[in-house]
Amino acid sequence: MRSHYCGSLSSENIDQEVTLCGWVDRRRDHGGVIFLDMRDREGIVQVVFDPDTEEHFRTADRVRGEYVLRIRGRVRARAGATVNANMKTGEIEVLGKELEILNESETPPFQLDDHTNVGEDVRLRYRYLDLRRPQIADKLRLRARITSVLRRYLDSQNFLDIETPILTRATPEGARDYLVPSRTHAGKFFALPQSPQLFKQLLMVSGFDRYYQIAKCFRDEDLRADRQPEFTQIDIETSFMDDKQIMAVTEGMISDLFKEVMNIDLGSFPTMKYAEAMSRFGSDKPDMRIPLEMVDVGDLMQDVEFKVFSGPAKSPDGRVAALKVPGGNEALTRKQIDEYTKFVGIYGAKGLAYIKVNDKSDLENGLQSPIVKFLPEPVRAAILDRLAAENGDLIFFGADSAKVVNEALGALRCKLGEDLKLYTCEWAPLWVVDFPMFEKDGSGNWTSLHHPFTAPSCSPEELEKAPGEALSIAYDMVLNGTELGGGSVRIHRSDMQQAVFRVLGIGPEEADEKFGFLLDALKYGAPPHGGLAFGLDRLVMLMTGAKSIRDVIAFPKTQSAACVMTDAPGTVEVKQLTELNIRLRKLEEK
Amino acid sequence: MRSHYCGSLSSENIDQEVTLCGWVDRRRDHGGVIFLDMRDREGIVQVVFDPDTEEHFRTADRVRGEYVLRIRGRVRARAGATVNANMKTGEIEVLGKELEILNESETPPFQLDDHTNVGEDVRLRYRYLDLRRPQIADKLRLRARITSVLRRYLDSQNFLDIETPILTRATPEGARDYLVPSRTHAGKFFALPQSPQLFKQLLMVSGFDRYYQIAKCFRDEDLRADRQPEFTQIDIETSFMDDKQIMAVTEGMISDLFKEVMNIDLGSFPTMKYAEAMSRFGSDKPDMRIPLEMVDVGDLMQDVEFKVFSGPAKSPDGRVAALKVPGGNEALTRKQIDEYTKFVGIYGAKGLAYIKVNDKSDLENGLQSPIVKFLPEPVRAAILDRLAAENGDLIFFGADSAKVVNEALGALRCKLGEDLKLYTCEWAPLWVVDFPMFEKDGSGNWTSLHHPFTAPSCSPEELEKAPGEALSIAYDMVLNGTELGGGSVRIHRSDMQQAVFRVLGIGPEEADEKFGFLLDALKYGAPPHGGLAFGLDRLVMLMTGAKSIRDVIAFPKTQSAACVMTDAPGTVEVKQLTELNIRLRKLEEK
Repeated sequence: MRSHYCGSLSSENIDQEVTLCGWVDRRRDHGGVIFLDMRDREGIVQVVFDPDTEEHFRTADRVRGEYVLRIRGRVRARAGATVNANMKTGEIEVLGKELEILNESETPPFQLDDHTNVGEDVRLRYRYLDLRRPQIADKLRLRARITSVLRRYLDSQNFLDIETPILTRATPEGARDYLVPSRTHAGKFFALPQSPQLFKQLLMVSGFDRYYQIAKCFRDEDLRADRQPEFTQIDIETSFMDDKQIMAVTEGMISDLFKEVMNIDLGSFPTMKYAEAMSRFGSDKPDMRIPLEMVDVGDLMQDVEFKVFSGPAKSPDGRVAALKVPGGNEALTRKQIDEYTKFVGIYGAKGLAYIKVNDKSDLENGLQSPIVKFLPEPVRAAILDRLAAENGDLIFFGADSAKVVNEALGALRCKLGEDLKLYTCEWAPLWVVDFPMFEKDGSGNWTSLHHPFTAPSCSPEELEKAPGEALSIAYDMVLNGTELGGGSVRIHRSDMQQAVFRVLGIGPEEADEKFGFLLDALKYGAPPHGGLAFGLDRLVMLMTGAKSIRDVIAFPKTQSAACVMTDAPGTVEVKQLTELNIRLRKLEEK
Repeated sequence: MRSHYCGSLSSENIDQEVTLCGWVDRRRDHGGVIFLDMRDREGIVQVVFDPDTEEHFRTADRVRGEYVLRIRGRVRARAGATVNANMKTGEIEVLGKELEILNESETPPFQLDDHTNVGEDVRLRYRYLDLRRPQIADKLRLRARITSVLRRYLDSQNFLDIETPILTRATPEGARDYLVPSRTHAGKFFALPQSPQLFKQLLMVSGFDRYYQIAKCFRDEDLRADRQPEFTQIDIETSFMDDKQIMAVTEGMISDLFKEVMNIDLGSFPTMKYAEAMSRFGSDKPDMRIPLEMVDVGDLMQDVEFKVFSGPAKSPDGRVAALKVPGGNEALTRKQIDEYTKFVGIYGAKGLAYIKVNDKSDLENGLQSPIVKFLPEPVRAAILDRLAAENGDLIFFGADSAKVVNEALGALRCKLGEDLKLYTCEWAPLWVVDFPMFEKDGSGNWTSLHHPFTAPSCSPEELEKAPGEALSIAYDMVLNGTELGGGSVRIHRSDMQQAVFRVLGIGPEEADEKFGFLLDALKYGAPPHGGLAFGLDRLVMLMTGAKSIRDVIAFPKTQSAACVMTDAPGTVEVKQLTELNIRLRKLEEK
């Protein structure tokens, strides 16, 4: 039906006859001539109809915004003054000769321009119109390109794309499952997968060696800004590769992706141990673009009379840490500091102590701070020394449980990085490794930091003797403070898997009930294996600069897990429920 | 961990040191030497351990079937007599120098060889072991290759891979939906998609122009041999292309696939109208490898006294057709004919009349048949003439409603093709076009032959005037009698869509309730669009020669829609149901 895309025309096409199909982005009458900005997926071009083409000019006169047209015309250069440098096709226009209206359009419920400020609910209700906006459409096009490049890389590395089931059994990932009642098995339910974890491990037991899948995963959790009920994972598993090799091949994948799609060289990814990441940045996904670091000062605070500091300093679970902002003395106003105090409150910090270093040579009066009076001069000196503070620097302090200090100062560090534009580079990738195997839950029981199939770097005996010291062979890939993906070497021996279950307090019966088929599989020649899963939605968000996960998904759900366009979820007929052997609670309670 | 795959070694590697990882396929002791057939995803190689490597020989002695090993050794040529021509690596073997047992294995519950004759239930329960069999594993590897080649083709044609939701609204495809209770919207349910039909149309309204997705689809139907609750579709939609262009681009895709993966040139696909396919082959997906055709003889039977023939011949819904089997007189025994009589009974035929042409010049005695006595000689002559029958031919007859005759003789034609090996070629692709828009259901109401969004080739007025005569702009791609895919140009104008709904007896309220968002979308500049969906599972079955759909899916469900490996569906806790606002019927009826 067409010879070119609107957006692909350029001065190379001058004097060519072209046929275009697309939408009317804008229509203007000017000096007895009709200008139509015509849009298709590749962009916009200006089409001009003048009264010489009588019949078609009359048709053009009827045309309104979002009408679907097919036009035939000749490409010509725009006159010097009318060249539009802001437009990809701004050097040319098409002199229309024929115009056919393929479909009309009512006036859309909102303007489809960049600055549309209608509520997101309306945009989601008319998602098919919102998707016409290049701001959204371009992100989905880039998403398609990203998956295409990822697949090509994985294909080239001999990974096999294998589909795993969507109708499956409740899995142990911990989040709430979406359930699907079974019609043929009364009273029983499928679960939608939170990840293909167990299936991909079974594929390794089967000998497929290198598996990948761009897999839909599901979690029935309350949604945050960057969560959706269904999300997409780049799921990878390999056999006979150690952690270093798995990291190398997946680092290669991401590097290749950035190179190919954005022409960015990420360089080689540094590796950092979990303990170091927590100590220096208060986070297991530190944003390495920000040159601020947390420094432990607990040892200096042991004996100060200021209990806010000495208490956590002496507690085994406590931490006292400082975060120096070079030049922060001038860069931050009193008001901003007050705001940061509120900000760290979100993470449970009860306050935000600080010292402004006005004159470091004058320990008595050169430090401006509400807390400095509680610190003896030798402690002041030791702090300045340890932080290598210079005049003009500002030092923030966190003193609380290590958890609160890490979260509060870790978040403050990121906020300062953003507010003060401290970024030293545009992209900072990082591997975080050597995670603890277990952490204690509220009741003091051990839980897996990753999942119970993660291999430890120690023997089963050492693991059971000191679970708190055991490290896992796990690795997270972090980019600009976002966890892009994570994975681990898995347990491939029955005895180790059972040791982990014992630490977790999962008895043989529960283990058999929940993971019997995996334990069985480990008995029949499971190879050493491991893998990784990347969050595709987050990756696309990072690469497109999207602020919301909804901008990188064609038909997203709202925060209440609904689709306002199709009105899903919806009511169903009682007959359907009867077939599924269920009924609604509400109806019954009447 | 390894230098080569077992199955990739050849005489080119002779004298090389190699490290291999894999499973023990077979172990033999012979002349004081241990032979291990070692298997990985690429194939099998023979590894020899002799007592010179003391320690490793002892380890090799411990090794049993399905143990996971890592070995180091040197590739050498096999001695002339021991070359195994049946084995890809049969010219060489590896002289083992080191052996490490990576994991042990209990004795598998069944032999993993070609001829495994254990029940499918056991194989599905230990699917991860069954997947080690090259007969299954190779099919899944080919499946991965097929999807990779398909994606590459579609990417090269500027199609965008866009994901549509799995948690969606009940769709009008007609089959039973899988439902997912919503926790946040009490009493409401998501449905799993039977296809992304409406979403892909909305993407066209959005201007994405060329969309594809390899999409999971779901149907809660009773399963036949070639059905699964979840199946995979290659889903395609385009804008501004007519039926011919859509057919050309998808024909290109399938041709390219066969060329690339199997080195088969499918040639250019012939096109046949639905009416012709039904008339000549009794099927809308005729197997064109078979040189048998149905021939109408109803006009000859109008006046015969044999009511079995004259009844259907005179009925407007009836059909009397003949199917000539050249040389069938000799090729088919009486017993076989009796079996075919039973066979057509499956399709509702009440009998299977036939005539054996012994001597066509002797109309009185040259025709051997239980029915010939009911046919006057001029009719006999006319039949022989119309069918161009020769001595030795056998002619089958069907006389019943057109539906029964088409199904019975159509199926018989395929059965004869298979039994008598009549295939004239290996691959016979075909486009079937010009389907009726509507057919009558049991109650005499019009229903869509495809779906209600299919565009007719006539105007809304003509459509409503004579729905039974309206043809759709739909097309099915058929290969060897299997429908590979089907699609249509869609309705893109509101007035046409409403005319179709009127014919279908769908009132404005029901239309709005069910498809309101699509009708809305048609108002805001929907482009002319159309598409196609291919059944990936069927395509892979055809290309791999699989007899069961379960052989081309990694983790299939049983005929009762269960996974016996993971024991899904399973029971869930009452707490979960309470959160979802549902309860079991059974519990309540106690």
